[in-house]
Amino acid sequence: MLLFGSRELSSKLTKAHKIQNYPGLPDIDGAQLAQAFKKHLDVLEIPITEKQVTAVYAMGGYFGIQTPDAMLEASSVILAGGVVMGKPFPKEDELLGRGVSYCATCDAHFYPGKTVAVLGYNAESCREANFLAETADRLLYFPVVPHEVAVNDHVQVINERPIAILGQTHAEGVQTEQNTYAVDGVFVLRDAVAPDKLVPGLAVEGAHVRVDANMATNLSGCFACGDLAGKPYQYIKAAGQGNVAALSAVEWLAKQKK
Amino acid sequence: MLLFGSRELSSKLTKAHKIQNYPGLPDIDGAQLAQAFKKHLDVLEIPITEKQVTAVYAMGGYFGIQTPDAMLEASSVILAGGVVMGKPFPKEDELLGRGVSYCATCDAHFYPGKTVAVLGYNAESCREANFLAETADRLLYFPVVPHEVAVNDHVQVINERPIAILGQTHAEGVQTEQNTYAVDGVFVLRDAVAPDKLVPGLAVEGAHVRVDANMATNLSGCFACGDLAGKPYQYIKAAGQGNVAALSAVEWLAKQKK
Repeated sequence: MLLFGSRELSSKLTKAHKIQNYPGLPDIDGAQLAQAFKKHLDVLEIPITEKQVTAVYAMGGYFGIQTPDAMLEASSVILAGGVVMGKPFPKEDELLGRGVSYCATCDAHFYPGKTVAVLGYNAESCREANFLAETADRLLYFPVVPHEVAVNDHVQVINERPIAILGQTHAEGVQTEQNTYAVDGVFVLRDAVAPDKLVPGLAVEGAHVRVDANMATNLSGCFACGDLAGKPYQYIKAAGQGNVAALSAVEWLAKQKK
Repeated sequence: MLLFGSRELSSKLTKAHKIQNYPGLPDIDGAQLAQAFKKHLDVLEIPITEKQVTAVYAMGGYFGIQTPDAMLEASSVILAGGVVMGKPFPKEDELLGRGVSYCATCDAHFYPGKTVAVLGYNAESCREANFLAETADRLLYFPVVPHEVAVNDHVQVINERPIAILGQTHAEGVQTEQNTYAVDGVFVLRDAVAPDKLVPGLAVEGAHVRVDANMATNLSGCFACGDLAGKPYQYIKAAGQGNVAALSAVEWLAKQKK
């Protein structure tokens, strides 16, 4: 069993104010709940695999888990990556894989000597921008939502709200409310990737993965839970669905062995 | 808001062994989880209404909540009473309300000078048997499942497994594996009443209430969550569904006011 994620506490969670509706943990704040979850993993000695998963491919008999440095295999997959807020930028969907990327470590090698834009959302976006700046000639960082922008001197921060990606057959620029910037590639580094982009072939309904009462998706052996499986966006609801998804996956695996 | 239940900790929960899959509370036992839930109610100052609910009637614009001493009204109802294990006894369904009852405090007054059987499951059944023995002439107590039988001297405990209720148009007896006992009334005092007997008109699938993804039942304004809404029977799944049901009820109430 591999649990992909980060031991760094999610800023979404640690920033949450008083949480009163997680039964058994009355009146705690987000940081305390995050610590409680972390402690739970430690007590059960469940390690976190700190790799970014850039794609999950349903191969029929197994799943291919794409990470920046390796393709891993799994018999069953549970998606629990949270929900993607907001709509894609104009042209984002069309130009994905043609100059638009969601993964700096995967695609940095396309851009030596080039100009690259990062549409950044969080501390991780900043780190990826620093990484990209080692390869690219010029790195423009556009903070899409307010966050502390900690980037090194090679990164040029542009405090203008990006509103569109430009280009016909390949990404060629970023348009902000004020200006247009010519670039060779655009990295959109959100907290999460839309589930049907992460898992080709996955059935969705709007921003959410389509699931049944057992948290099964349309792909046999692939389950989903939490915010990406639908509203309400609540910690206890996500935890409950995680339980159902885990038991469904175990049951599914047992059936395959027969 | 009225929360019907008992401040007494559920024996089902306190008897549970190590619970490892309630995220945030690693490696606790059932008694500790029960205490944590109780503390949560205390912190939020949510009182428990310690009345037995014997029926819930969907009246169109409101719900009638039948208790032994009063009929209460509610705009919306969330069912969270746990699941009823096991099948009804032969004739139980047919003779319900005709000598078969689920509520001692409701129906004791039918039996002064009569012989009454209690099919008992737990400590609460014993207390209700003692209460019935004050009215009835003769009280036979049949423990259906193993439990500590603490009844007073007026109650005759019969350690034979009951297998059927007897009678054509009215309950007339209890049949055990060994003998037949003539009685005037039979009280079946399970942990929970089957949901469609508690709520006439409620759609069920086997032992479970039929719910959609929002925990809505077929009755407008009536929601359900936890074990009675389906498997898996897990604390964290029940808590998550409770969250969804509560938010759905609030949303439903808001819509009614428009």
